[in-house]
Amino acid sequence: MPTLEDNAGAILTQSLAIIEWLEETHPEPPLLPKDPLRRAKVRAFALALACDTHPVQNLKVLARLRQLGLPKEKVTEWAASANREGLSACEILIAGESGPFCFGGAPTMADLCLVPQLANARRFGVDLGGFPRLLKAEAAAKDNKAFADAAPERQPDAE
Amino acid sequence: MPTLEDNAGAILTQSLAIIEWLEETHPEPPLLPKDPLRRAKVRAFALALACDTHPVQNLKVLARLRQLGLPKEKVTEWAASANREGLSACEILIAGESGPFCFGGAPTMADLCLVPQLANARRFGVDLGGFPRLLKAEAAAKDNKAFADAAPERQPDAE
Repeated sequence: MPTLEDNAGAILTQSLAIIEWLEETHPEPPLLPKDPLRRAKVRAFALALACDTHPVQNLKVLARLRQLGLPKEKVTEWAASANREGLSACEILIAGESGPFCFGGAPTMADLCLVPQLANARRFGVDLGGFPRLLKAEAAAKDNKAFADAAPERQPDAE
Repeated sequence: MPTLEDNAGAILTQSLAIIEWLEETHPEPPLLPKDPLRRAKVRAFALALACDTHPVQNLKVLARLRQLGLPKEKVTEWAASANREGLSACEILIAGESGPFCFGGAPTMADLCLVPQLANARRFGVDLGGFPRLLKAEAAAKDNKAFADAAPERQPDAE
């Protein structure tokens, strides 16, 4: 459960609410463009992952499917399928964007959602060959120090 | 699939991205408070429904569960359970808010997400007696013309 405690001790929840709060209180570097229509496109990409993809394949849902008696390989296929569908939608959303990040030359909220989702997709064995534009954005993120520093295995409490 | 076409013909997708765009381009009446921390709390409530609740019980997921061989009553219990858990979290998020809406005396993005989710919960037979604060917000919305006009059965293409 991602949470953030601000300097006054307030606890913020929900990843995208936290990102919007960071954008409003620490606006540089920006995670959203200035133009309202471009902002809507970045947010739609992020939400296509945060609402339509990630929740359907999270660990809690997969555990419940197992409890309901589904065999392990069907549960994995469920998760892979959710990833494939979500990433397919996202590939189309940025097909016309030159990048290299999802929306332009710098990371946005869209890239923040994409990078961990691609890691999930690989974990469930999804073939990512059909998503060249998403992989281009991921490659740009790999060259960015902030993304490298945020990798799960780089955190102080990583197992 | 909620979509919005703006005056220039651009197509916006994802409900919350559309709501944020409306807020930025048509700021009155506001759907978010001014203070960043309050905005984060409203967004966290909305996302607890839009990310953690609705996607797990939407029609596509329920149809897939049926395809996987789950009996109808187990699918309904899956949907009811997702609604109960999401609404329980939301009840706590606004327990300290006097209302009558989720966050104050006027509707916000939180109420826009809550009203349809309560309708879903009823459809799946969820007992809403344990959610007095959510029902108070819903009652306030029922007295609001904009909510009444937005009811599915009031739309020109309603079946």
